[in-house]
Amino acid sequence: MARRVAVVGAGVSGLASLKCCLEEGLQPTCFERSEDLGGLWRYTDHVEEGRASLYKSVVTNSSREMSCYSDFPFPEDFPNYVPNSQFLEYLRMYADQFNLRKYIQFKTKVCSVKKRPDFAVSGQWDVVTMHEGKPSSAIFDAVMVCTGFLTDPYLPLDAFPGIHSFQGQYLHSRQYKSPDLFQDKRVLVVGMGNSGTDIAVEASRLAKKVFLSTTAGGWVISRVFDSGYPWDMVFTTRFRSMVMNSLPTPIVTWLVAKKMNSRFNHANYGLIPRDRVQLREPVINDELPGCIITGKVSIRPSVEEVRGSSVVFTNSPKEEPVDLIVFATGYTFAFPFLDESVVKVEDGQASLYKYIFPAHLPKPTLAVIGLIKPYGSMVPTGETQARWAVRVLKGTNSLPPPSVMIKDVNERRKNKHSGFGLCYCKALQSDYIKYIDELLTYIGAKPSLLSLLLTDPRLALAVFFGPFTPYQFRLTGPGKWEGARNAILMQWDRTLQATRTRIVPESPSPVEGALKLLGFLALLGAVFLVFL
Amino acid sequence: MARRVAVVGAGVSGLASLKCCLEEGLQPTCFERSEDLGGLWRYTDHVEEGRASLYKSVVTNSSREMSCYSDFPFPEDFPNYVPNSQFLEYLRMYADQFNLRKYIQFKTKVCSVKKRPDFAVSGQWDVVTMHEGKPSSAIFDAVMVCTGFLTDPYLPLDAFPGIHSFQGQYLHSRQYKSPDLFQDKRVLVVGMGNSGTDIAVEASRLAKKVFLSTTAGGWVISRVFDSGYPWDMVFTTRFRSMVMNSLPTPIVTWLVAKKMNSRFNHANYGLIPRDRVQLREPVINDELPGCIITGKVSIRPSVEEVRGSSVVFTNSPKEEPVDLIVFATGYTFAFPFLDESVVKVEDGQASLYKYIFPAHLPKPTLAVIGLIKPYGSMVPTGETQARWAVRVLKGTNSLPPPSVMIKDVNERRKNKHSGFGLCYCKALQSDYIKYIDELLTYIGAKPSLLSLLLTDPRLALAVFFGPFTPYQFRLTGPGKWEGARNAILMQWDRTLQATRTRIVPESPSPVEGALKLLGFLALLGAVFLVFL
Repeated sequence: MARRVAVVGAGVSGLASLKCCLEEGLQPTCFERSEDLGGLWRYTDHVEEGRASLYKSVVTNSSREMSCYSDFPFPEDFPNYVPNSQFLEYLRMYADQFNLRKYIQFKTKVCSVKKRPDFAVSGQWDVVTMHEGKPSSAIFDAVMVCTGFLTDPYLPLDAFPGIHSFQGQYLHSRQYKSPDLFQDKRVLVVGMGNSGTDIAVEASRLAKKVFLSTTAGGWVISRVFDSGYPWDMVFTTRFRSMVMNSLPTPIVTWLVAKKMNSRFNHANYGLIPRDRVQLREPVINDELPGCIITGKVSIRPSVEEVRGSSVVFTNSPKEEPVDLIVFATGYTFAFPFLDESVVKVEDGQASLYKYIFPAHLPKPTLAVIGLIKPYGSMVPTGETQARWAVRVLKGTNSLPPPSVMIKDVNERRKNKHSGFGLCYCKALQSDYIKYIDELLTYIGAKPSLLSLLLTDPRLALAVFFGPFTPYQFRLTGPGKWEGARNAILMQWDRTLQATRTRIVPESPSPVEGALKLLGFLALLGAVFLVFL
Repeated sequence: MARRVAVVGAGVSGLASLKCCLEEGLQPTCFERSEDLGGLWRYTDHVEEGRASLYKSVVTNSSREMSCYSDFPFPEDFPNYVPNSQFLEYLRMYADQFNLRKYIQFKTKVCSVKKRPDFAVSGQWDVVTMHEGKPSSAIFDAVMVCTGFLTDPYLPLDAFPGIHSFQGQYLHSRQYKSPDLFQDKRVLVVGMGNSGTDIAVEASRLAKKVFLSTTAGGWVISRVFDSGYPWDMVFTTRFRSMVMNSLPTPIVTWLVAKKMNSRFNHANYGLIPRDRVQLREPVINDELPGCIITGKVSIRPSVEEVRGSSVVFTNSPKEEPVDLIVFATGYTFAFPFLDESVVKVEDGQASLYKYIFPAHLPKPTLAVIGLIKPYGSMVPTGETQARWAVRVLKGTNSLPPPSVMIKDVNERRKNKHSGFGLCYCKALQSDYIKYIDELLTYIGAKPSLLSLLLTDPRLALAVFFGPFTPYQFRLTGPGKWEGARNAILMQWDRTLQATRTRIVPESPSPVEGALKLLGFLALLGAVFLVFL
């Protein structure tokens, strides 16, 4: 039974891991390389080695109600999508609320995590850390790795012939902080993920010209979704997920395309995904279509060649002069302090059972938290992973034998698809609701819809048809939170209240009045006829 | 018969007036106060007295195809909504194409335009101008006033108690050029017209906090409309106008509200118009909803009071600290060089017949061009006004007797509404299509849909169901343009081409294939049954 747990990193997942350890009576020590908590979400003006780097304007892609820790809603005066500075504030509140700071050793880099010689029996780890140049070593019963996957830039320069003799400047999106450098430049952004799109949009306000080059294209979703509700609160519901997962993939693909094209036709805007079956992560951006229609951002296919101070795009002979290239080509991940025998990374996939436990390890005393890209928020995902992981580390829950785990990992790698529902095909991506429900089942915290329907039908309907908010993970079982029910029932009120900052007395519409009157008369007529 | 015509101002309407004069064989002289043409659309870093002032980021609110001169489409490589620098380029092309520059006297201010002593007989005017400090005077047979209405700021400070002891800074939106001044400030923008909304959105990227205060609220439309088509190309069609104008006002109001709320619910975003019957000019902005949902812009009701360095909004006791107030409270207009006996301005209404001819003048030798806010683009509106006006000045067309004109003007002022269609209630606002069609009828250039349907059905359908593009004003009658038909038939191709800058081969959807197959089988079955 694990007692002393080393938590590596004090970001979103590290903080959740700390809290889970404490709740399960374990003794955690968190090693944080930098001088403060918050990980990715702590913006600094300069890029820091070994830490993810934000640009100044980052706003969460998941709404407030969908991206909180499951027992710790955002303050009501926070906006529905939270700018990074306020997100950091929230993480600090969380750390203070659950008294987590005292377990964190700041400015302490983890140099190596190695199996103890008696690992096969003890499952213990030797952890070597470095604090202000001074190394120290300690034995831990378990390790939780919470280092994220947005630190090591992926920069495939060889895919851009001529880039080495490019006469302009180029950088990776990791280096990007604020748009001043674009002033009056001709800018090319390569890669249409969330960062690339944000950067292209920001550049367009200052630059002379902005190209956004994408090979694969993508679906672009607005935070302001149907009728203005937050996109993820509309999109991510158990009901929708159930319907989607029971339909054959081609129909789902078609429905998704139809929905995505309803705001604007992606083909007409040059954005249409090349492969509409294998769903890539959608791009969340409210401004890109407006930038395209005003000519501020021009969408282009892949770069064929860089020629001196110009760029040639696929299927076009024209050379486009470019002063500055931003490669928003994403990140790779690695565990420099871990041995390959513990976690092996191949093709952007780590051999982790349920994205958490190294499948080959004879003792389940190491967990990786937050190494997944679900179609939902990372905050509750990491937290739920931690809740389960801690129970496994402690011995309350157990894992299947390694052979089963290895088989599971290999099948994911082979990317077997059932033929129903959405087809997630990129490394680390998976169905959010299905994945969380699986973890909740392991924990014993998955709400039973049927019994809920019998005991609390209003809540049951909100859980099934409403947004899949994290409060659902705290309705029952270990870690149950008394505030969960109320948080669920009030989630829409909180959401609307945040933007209803000017209220006008509703003048009843005569047309709606007339429609209501007509309905009433029809009802009266029907009653009359029945009793005639 | 007018020969010599003075055109005051070389902006959008002035250039069109010049061209119309030349086409009708008149001798125009255009007096332009500044050193270049373009009027409003010529951006300068500093505000110039007596000339409208743009901020740097202004983009047209009407799409390219809807806001060109009727016989001069925008170049194909221009975006669908044109940034101001390119719009100025377009105006220069127009001036060059029709050789207008040589008729313009730059740096020449019109000091006074006075009736000649024999005006009752001759209809002539004494025009006094000033060039580099040197006055000169000349007699003109007619005058076209093209000075616009966005020069004199309207700043009703008395409506803001406490503003005179405000400890922060304040300015009128006319002074606004670019967003640097907002850096880290708490900003209040008063007024939710197009400028106010643009400014609030731009401020939100740099400011600490942005309030946008609006008493009346408004409908906010995105340039990227249904399926991504330009909003005005979808909205402004003869078909839609006909339907709307034949329905009772309450139903139209209800339909408009339903449509406007489809992208986002205006009540939930604090934007809902207080008066939904009297339609105000809609706000064209793609980014405001995204700014509200991310908390970057907070919508507020009217300002109750300014208190030192804070502001109190109606219905809220809270004092909100504010460093900078931008009054986007619009403009007034006046004709300082004209006598009140010529044009009288009262309550933001000038006594102009059809917004053009002073109703009281015994001789119709003065026309005001571009003093209207139609629900469409100013460019073709001003141009069509000029086409008719020039024919009246020349004597080809005549006006009704003054008594009829005065009655017409007074009825507009009383704001009589038929009870059908939309209800335009603010000064200068009117139904775009109805107004233009009226002018075209006077000119003899209104296309007859019925005869078009018989001779050229494809064109007829495009004219009736398609966007009300200015090319329609050149299909027939005086000023007919041979390119008009083709311009109309190709308008959607040009629009889509502008943003289809990355093309992906369409992979046929199996679902659509299946639906087509099913349809075909059903048809086959039906045929089989019929012949059985």
